[in-house]
Amino acid sequence: MSEIKDFTLNCPLPISDYPTVTLAHGGGGKLMHQLIERMILPAFQSPLLEARHDGAVFNLGGARLAFTTDSYVVHPLFFPGGDIGSLAINGTVNDLSMCGARPMYLSCGLILEEGLPMETLWAVVQSLKQSAEIAGVQLVTGDTKVVDRGKGDGVFINTAGVGVIEHGLVIAPSAVRAGDVVLLSGDIGRHGIAIMAMREGLEFESKIESDCAPLNHAVLALIEAGVNVHCLRDLTRGGLGTTLIEIAEATGLQITIEETAIPVRDDVAGACEVLGFDPLYLANEGRMIAILPEAEAAKALDLLRRSPNTSGAVAIGRVTDGGGVVRLKSQIGTTRVLDMLSGEQLPRIC
Amino acid sequence: MSEIKDFTLNCPLPISDYPTVTLAHGGGGKLMHQLIERMILPAFQSPLLEARHDGAVFNLGGARLAFTTDSYVVHPLFFPGGDIGSLAINGTVNDLSMCGARPMYLSCGLILEEGLPMETLWAVVQSLKQSAEIAGVQLVTGDTKVVDRGKGDGVFINTAGVGVIEHGLVIAPSAVRAGDVVLLSGDIGRHGIAIMAMREGLEFESKIESDCAPLNHAVLALIEAGVNVHCLRDLTRGGLGTTLIEIAEATGLQITIEETAIPVRDDVAGACEVLGFDPLYLANEGRMIAILPEAEAAKALDLLRRSPNTSGAVAIGRVTDGGGVVRLKSQIGTTRVLDMLSGEQLPRIC
Repeated sequence: MSEIKDFTLNCPLPISDYPTVTLAHGGGGKLMHQLIERMILPAFQSPLLEARHDGAVFNLGGARLAFTTDSYVVHPLFFPGGDIGSLAINGTVNDLSMCGARPMYLSCGLILEEGLPMETLWAVVQSLKQSAEIAGVQLVTGDTKVVDRGKGDGVFINTAGVGVIEHGLVIAPSAVRAGDVVLLSGDIGRHGIAIMAMREGLEFESKIESDCAPLNHAVLALIEAGVNVHCLRDLTRGGLGTTLIEIAEATGLQITIEETAIPVRDDVAGACEVLGFDPLYLANEGRMIAILPEAEAAKALDLLRRSPNTSGAVAIGRVTDGGGVVRLKSQIGTTRVLDMLSGEQLPRIC
Repeated sequence: MSEIKDFTLNCPLPISDYPTVTLAHGGGGKLMHQLIERMILPAFQSPLLEARHDGAVFNLGGARLAFTTDSYVVHPLFFPGGDIGSLAINGTVNDLSMCGARPMYLSCGLILEEGLPMETLWAVVQSLKQSAEIAGVQLVTGDTKVVDRGKGDGVFINTAGVGVIEHGLVIAPSAVRAGDVVLLSGDIGRHGIAIMAMREGLEFESKIESDCAPLNHAVLALIEAGVNVHCLRDLTRGGLGTTLIEIAEATGLQITIEETAIPVRDDVAGACEVLGFDPLYLANEGRMIAILPEAEAAKALDLLRRSPNTSGAVAIGRVTDGGGVVRLKSQIGTTRVLDMLSGEQLPRIC
């Protein structure tokens, strides 16, 4: 017996501007932020959601845990360097890692479209299994639903994950301080270009593979070595640019980035020119930033460079007082303030 | 850099029989069981999945926890007695409850179809909020994806949940013993008929409302009163019949049910006749069975009847040695063995 009757609260988004959901509402830019900030977060009002983190962190039964979820609707299902299965495992493993947690247990909800070839499902299931093994997590609970033909798109996957936090650090935007440095774990933009090239039928001289990979081993190496990590973020929808803006806005601090310090592979830069994308906003699925005290930067870089999925780590900038904005310093010394993208750069990238 | 290259294992399902996924693979009957048992569970091979429970139970950081997930693809989104939002909250709350856990924290992944009216999304979000409040759980982390028009169906929701187990009972099929009694928490079949009537445009004299409701308070009342609960199961896809068969098969014991003891409302029975459904296999979203020692049945029934969502609780049968089957005793004393449905009775019921 449901007690839910009237939905009397007025919708907090201006319906006249956006009467329906658009693809841009899922794209990681301004519209998605507006939808989440004005509609979803106020309705739920949990103090844990206020942290605006990649996952929730709480104490339960004496344990300090992290908990996160993501749905995956990537199109196409298979792409150079990965597939929806590896994405679904690594995405949730990485969100838990960004909370400073050791990812342990994952759930897997499959929404299958009627008519999906059984061989395709089998390939996805095997990718889930192999990716979980590589990341060192267990898939422990799941669910399968089937929707009518034309009401889904092959396979959608939701994974949620539980991790355990084994240290006393607070790893969150609130811990970021003026004087911190920003480390980037490797070159950016490959996931976005790998998907887009495939979707558009483009071929480049060298095959551009997604960077899709688990980051838990690299993060735990930092923490176990006693590095005083202040904040971690993986660079998924919205890319490096949006992630930095979110942190600057959350902290009220200024983040200044050296454009020339950001690694972008030549073939990715070339593809961005052809396709009209800015690599700063391209999605990555195995890249993160770590913000930490300057005194610990050399040690952290050394540790990251020894871990296979973060071997290209570099320092790209620093945090200073004031502004709540991100400034990008170009090669010739000019600076510009980074803006959040208003529309959607790449739909269904993850 | 993904290390996943070859999917060399052969698909364990006979592709020639079912080359593609059909709606019946999600319907809770034989085909769904075959898909999960032969394809998904062997690929994941976690000892926790072997329990075949509604959720996984494990120790982490000193806490005993339950973790579960479900995706919701119900059509239509709103129906008498509930909607996709209340279903998504109560379904996951109930799965955690069936593990004997206190449901605490839920995640929420939304997959929205481009063109969804913003007012519809707002109604769903409010239902999620209100249902979480009624059940006493917090939505603490979430994700929003948007898919192109015609690649989704309005809203799909995934919820996962974490609960804490505050007692030493093992609540699972493995704890069921010969001599136990089977309690049913109320009348069956209303959720299935509420959805079906709406989908088919049927009208009955009295409006049949879904039984969608949270069961955590009733379950915790049993546990806190010290009732030695052996097994709990909510009666979702596949209904009472399938649930009993699953338990009989898992335990190797025989479950004998008195047909006349099973409460079915007259209007539901009438609708079943018109639509050609068997109420034993209809989905419920607020009903459960509890299997426990006969000596505790009276106390348990009394406790359940005092809780609003289980006020119609009755004893319907008992567990005896041998067979691994479910026997249904009719009013005139004949018995028949219950069979799992091979197809799908009602697609997209939850």
